[in-house]
Amino acid sequence: MKKVVLIPDSFKETMSSLEICNIMKKSILSRFPGCETISIPVADGGEGSVDCFLDAMGGERVTVKVSGPFFNQIDSFYGLVDGGKTAVIEMAACAGLPLVGASKNPMAATTFGVGQLISAAAARGCKKIILGLGGSCTNDGGCGAAAALGVKFRDKDGKEFVPTGGSLKDIAHVDASLPDPLLKGIEIICMCDIDNPLYGETGAAYVFAPQKGADAGMVKLLDEGLINLAAVINSCLGTNPGEMPGGGAAGGMGAGMAVLLGAKLRMGIQTVLDLVGFDAVIKDADMIFTGEGKIDMQSLRGKVVIGVARRAKVQKVPVIAVVGDIGNGVEGAYNEGVTAIFSINNVAVPFEKAKLRCREDMALTMDNIMRLISVKTAGND
Amino acid sequence: MKKVVLIPDSFKETMSSLEICNIMKKSILSRFPGCETISIPVADGGEGSVDCFLDAMGGERVTVKVSGPFFNQIDSFYGLVDGGKTAVIEMAACAGLPLVGASKNPMAATTFGVGQLISAAAARGCKKIILGLGGSCTNDGGCGAAAALGVKFRDKDGKEFVPTGGSLKDIAHVDASLPDPLLKGIEIICMCDIDNPLYGETGAAYVFAPQKGADAGMVKLLDEGLINLAAVINSCLGTNPGEMPGGGAAGGMGAGMAVLLGAKLRMGIQTVLDLVGFDAVIKDADMIFTGEGKIDMQSLRGKVVIGVARRAKVQKVPVIAVVGDIGNGVEGAYNEGVTAIFSINNVAVPFEKAKLRCREDMALTMDNIMRLISVKTAGND
Repeated sequence: MKKVVLIPDSFKETMSSLEICNIMKKSILSRFPGCETISIPVADGGEGSVDCFLDAMGGERVTVKVSGPFFNQIDSFYGLVDGGKTAVIEMAACAGLPLVGASKNPMAATTFGVGQLISAAAARGCKKIILGLGGSCTNDGGCGAAAALGVKFRDKDGKEFVPTGGSLKDIAHVDASLPDPLLKGIEIICMCDIDNPLYGETGAAYVFAPQKGADAGMVKLLDEGLINLAAVINSCLGTNPGEMPGGGAAGGMGAGMAVLLGAKLRMGIQTVLDLVGFDAVIKDADMIFTGEGKIDMQSLRGKVVIGVARRAKVQKVPVIAVVGDIGNGVEGAYNEGVTAIFSINNVAVPFEKAKLRCREDMALTMDNIMRLISVKTAGND
Repeated sequence: MKKVVLIPDSFKETMSSLEICNIMKKSILSRFPGCETISIPVADGGEGSVDCFLDAMGGERVTVKVSGPFFNQIDSFYGLVDGGKTAVIEMAACAGLPLVGASKNPMAATTFGVGQLISAAAARGCKKIILGLGGSCTNDGGCGAAAALGVKFRDKDGKEFVPTGGSLKDIAHVDASLPDPLLKGIEIICMCDIDNPLYGETGAAYVFAPQKGADAGMVKLLDEGLINLAAVINSCLGTNPGEMPGGGAAGGMGAGMAVLLGAKLRMGIQTVLDLVGFDAVIKDADMIFTGEGKIDMQSLRGKVVIGVARRAKVQKVPVIAVVGDIGNGVEGAYNEGVTAIFSINNVAVPFEKAKLRCREDMALTMDNIMRLISVKTAGND
């Protein structure tokens, strides 16, 4: 083999995408020392996404002082890639759960800093902004970020304010006609892998607010706030963000970014594949290695392995998926372009034990795959 | 691929060797419809061994009435293969644990019927007898079988008798000079995969008699009986069977067969490989598939996978091991001729759950291996 592309998803709770790339690379080089390996650690939109893009593409990590989750000043950052034409931002960098520690409070937390990061990136002259929605501690419907970029929220008395989860219910009017002029001509793409709507039983508050510190009563208040936000947007802008798939991402930021700032919501893997120029990267590749913690019927909805396979299939590049568990209903994956799937489970133990040895298991499985590939066989007869 | 040889061990508690052969065959044919597959289900010497040989080689299953475990008349059988030149016998066919059900009694059980099977096979004109030692309910040191073949055991009063576990202590004299004349010129090979000696802490009684129904007191009596047997043999025949590795197999039958009837003890897999003419079978094979329930450092001592790999290495035929668990220290397997090892564990669950889905997992793993092999890749550059 002369050229191999490595593009695994992270394995939830066990290994980052970059770690997996490195294990794969070592295994491939030990058997094919002259092989070119291209590592594309996959950003999932959450914490670490910016570093993933910088690892995969090179670029500049820019630090900026912006508002933290509770309007406190913090050091945050974004990435500039593609010669400065594209900025990559993870909202977790200033509104992420790890930043609040034990002081979780989705009633009070804001995405204001995210808007400031977007503004800072725009000021650097980028033409496209990739915003990772993931790992948020907020439930403000993205109002904080929108406010930081010039969208005006007013209460029933006409008084302008920056809504947070707890004060969404007070919004009586919204004016999105005057966003930051720097945003003109800039495409904003939100990485968003969930389908949840803004509000309701499957919405941002009910599904995600509990892990951000909300008790049952708070969840109800937050949901009511999001319902009010949708109603005001509908009446002021003529757009109902309530039904939008993915609108509930990052405490409703998906919906807010889309309707208030014209952002597009896209599957994370598609964003990554486009940004790294995947189709060109794999043009002369002999093989692609991908993977995810569990491949199953859900994977067919567009997670990393299938996203990669669909692109690879067009160019007839073999795709080997090295995964944690192989669930039911994976047969469809082969039709989508996956050549073969191997689990890294090398002993019969439950996940709690398997995860402790996942790195050795990944290395062992990769090694055996490479050993099989190295065999001179009449396999193609 | 044009020709593939399948020679897996059984997976303990889960799948027989023949079942695994069939799953492997189906998978290979689904991807390489014209491929010749040769299945060699591996006999381990225990119950089912005769059928394994007959499946692998073809031949005749001969039924014979002989003594059962408690000198009761039963229908038993042996196999004739290799054009009648070789007989294969499993001692479990007339002295096996399943035959006694809840009436386990290693003090009273006899291998007399095994001797009768040997005699019957010899009378059919075979030149070689393969005797599988495994799954026994006896602890008679093989004295029953020896007696059936003309070896004389006498007590201190000179009275001839057929010793069982409980009466081994009464043996005062043994005469092995007049075995069944039919045995003349016949090679007897015992399949024996354990190293345990005849008696002592690691001997037949202490290690294996408890599963045959012996309590602690009985174990001690049985062990003393085996010690007496060894002493009498040593004094009458000038050979001490006490130290022989494998002498403790099948309730001491390993030692009895060796010193009283001149049998050879061999690893089961070596016996199988020789009998099926493995070296010739693999001559033009593209690949060999083998496997076992767990591959680990112990496997390197000569279990199925390594036994197969050592022969394959000479002819440079790739060997793929498809196994249950991959234990520690398997690196040595690659040096012995194993090309690659794949575990059938496709989800992280403990063995109790894994074994329920082992057939599906074997099929899935084989399918993915075949998919990888089918890829037209520049893998050999």
